[in-house]
Amino acid sequence: MKIDTLHYLARPDGIELLELIDQRVLPQQVRFISCTDAGSTANAIRDMVVRGAPAIGITAAYGMALEAATLVRTFRGTARKTNTRATLHGISSEEERSKPFFRAMAVARARLATSRPTAVNLFWALARCDEVLAGLGAKSPDVVARALLTLARRLHREDVALNRAMGAHGAALLQAGTRILTHCNAGALATAGYGTALGVIRAAHAQRKITNVWVDETRPFLQGARLTAWELQQEKIPATLICDNMAASLMAAGKVDAVIVGADRVAANGDVANKIGTYGLAVLARAHRLPFYVAAPLSTFDLALANGKLIPIEERAADEMTGYFGKRWAPEKMRVFNPAFDVTPARLVTAIITERGVLSKPSRLNVARHVV
Amino acid sequence: MKIDTLHYLARPDGIELLELIDQRVLPQQVRFISCTDAGSTANAIRDMVVRGAPAIGITAAYGMALEAATLVRTFRGTARKTNTRATLHGISSEEERSKPFFRAMAVARARLATSRPTAVNLFWALARCDEVLAGLGAKSPDVVARALLTLARRLHREDVALNRAMGAHGAALLQAGTRILTHCNAGALATAGYGTALGVIRAAHAQRKITNVWVDETRPFLQGARLTAWELQQEKIPATLICDNMAASLMAAGKVDAVIVGADRVAANGDVANKIGTYGLAVLARAHRLPFYVAAPLSTFDLALANGKLIPIEERAADEMTGYFGKRWAPEKMRVFNPAFDVTPARLVTAIITERGVLSKPSRLNVARHVV
Repeated sequence: MKIDTLHYLARPDGIELLELIDQRVLPQQVRFISCTDAGSTANAIRDMVVRGAPAIGITAAYGMALEAATLVRTFRGTARKTNTRATLHGISSEEERSKPFFRAMAVARARLATSRPTAVNLFWALARCDEVLAGLGAKSPDVVARALLTLARRLHREDVALNRAMGAHGAALLQAGTRILTHCNAGALATAGYGTALGVIRAAHAQRKITNVWVDETRPFLQGARLTAWELQQEKIPATLICDNMAASLMAAGKVDAVIVGADRVAANGDVANKIGTYGLAVLARAHRLPFYVAAPLSTFDLALANGKLIPIEERAADEMTGYFGKRWAPEKMRVFNPAFDVTPARLVTAIITERGVLSKPSRLNVARHVV
Repeated sequence: MKIDTLHYLARPDGIELLELIDQRVLPQQVRFISCTDAGSTANAIRDMVVRGAPAIGITAAYGMALEAATLVRTFRGTARKTNTRATLHGISSEEERSKPFFRAMAVARARLATSRPTAVNLFWALARCDEVLAGLGAKSPDVVARALLTLARRLHREDVALNRAMGAHGAALLQAGTRILTHCNAGALATAGYGTALGVIRAAHAQRKITNVWVDETRPFLQGARLTAWELQQEKIPATLICDNMAASLMAAGKVDAVIVGADRVAANGDVANKIGTYGLAVLARAHRLPFYVAAPLSTFDLALANGKLIPIEERAADEMTGYFGKRWAPEKMRVFNPAFDVTPARLVTAIITERGVLSKPSRLNVARHVV
């Protein structure tokens, strides 16, 4: 089964949409949320309709394209009036028409950029959009809108190829009979398809190397219990759901051979921000002498940050933790701390698997050699 | 507020009851479940109406007393007939009347003993009941029933005193300004009152030493989010709820000064079985050079077991993990592993706090010195 994380479509009336599978209600409900502009796209990212660093990046690029298309339609209606004024003042109508467009695009960009703070792929994708906007600054909004859509589609298409490359590089690291533990969802649902960490697992499974995948349920949002469990079932990859706090005793019992996770941001020294709980797993893996792998495309690297301490860590609302299904299990007014990510120092990472290959023993030097 | 984990009462009609606060629905609902015999008491333990090693032990002792009282009432109705038969066969009516009683008590004991496997306090309390039964083997069921009730009441009363002693010994280990992390619920709800690990926290709070208690939510049964959070709120002890997988990053950020947990069984070498997730915390505490304390009464020690590998670990039903409030979040048919406990090797335990004092660096020798 193809897992349809996000798809872009144009309705017969010409309105363009990004449809996102609503990851808040999977797997019990398979429903889609439609985004038509940057605002609705930013909301979908913030509310975790779509999550996973690569998926967020692609979604943001589509958000910029949707906003541009919406603005083109909006400005088309006011074009005649503007034309007249512009001619009176001696300004080329093209340039005059474009100014409010580019101003609106800057607002749209800001909305998307403030939707979630930790995954750098979001900012990476917006930076790609900036290049398009800068390069076509003198062109008409129509041209810009088309160029942004072309960009989003390219990022979308490329992501799957990157994931497959990561899968091949990562699978080569694993032996037959591997019992692998993963945290959160770094699968097709976190990307344009196939997945980063789950891409490696998919590739290794195709090579008949996977005996079992221990799936951390991944509190509080339950990306493991809901999304990874579901993806692995779809692919008929043998998997067992556990609570996050069970990983340590499985390691002690010799039932885990390796840990693999995705990443939301990799600093220049190889420190890795990823879903909360990842750092603890890395400490446990080291204590049990197990390899700890991170699968992340190069778009997840943020060479501007010297180390992981500089990565902004999102804190989310208390009600994500205090209950479920709209009901509460914790006492009212209980104080809650809900960081969505943590930082794993490079020294605990055996290797980072990228589309380019295997970056072993990440360090400032090794990251620079691999990335540049 | 007094937290009423369990209380024994006799109704005006003479029927005796053990009322248990239903810990499956706290804190949203405060409701009580009544047990009238060993069967209903065993069910309440198995279904986790009552949980926590010391509380289970006391509950089992009351279960034996209730069964004896029920049997006395039942046999009273058939006493005349038996009397006649017994006299015909030349057997003392007392002895004859007692045989089916003691047979029924053996069945009741077996039901209680098979309710949950890991907490040794259950078996410890049943062994105390055995002593009463053996010592009064020739006495009438009435006498035995009264003696079992006296025993249960004594264990109940003593437990609070033991907890207060542990609290005092443990609090002396903590500095002012301590930010302590605890897992599961080792509080008043896990005992007859006051608590083991939470008893230490209560005592330290009374000495104004506690700045914050990090409360692990403790998946899957959420004893932390529901029970410990609620108890600490009742006592106005500053506390913050976290997911189990957040403890590591708090430690790395220097926001935890010590970890304290309860125990379900301590082996002769100092290995500790406790709620799943405890072992991982102990590894993390060691990696971050934090003290890791266990608070457990001597009734939790099982000197018959050389080490923790011999402690039976309960596995519970999958549906405890796959959803909540009767609804499911994991995909159907997902394979699940749900161990309720894990074993922390003695080398990771800084000290075990008992009613007798502080057992530092637990080992076969140090345990023997402390316990015997």
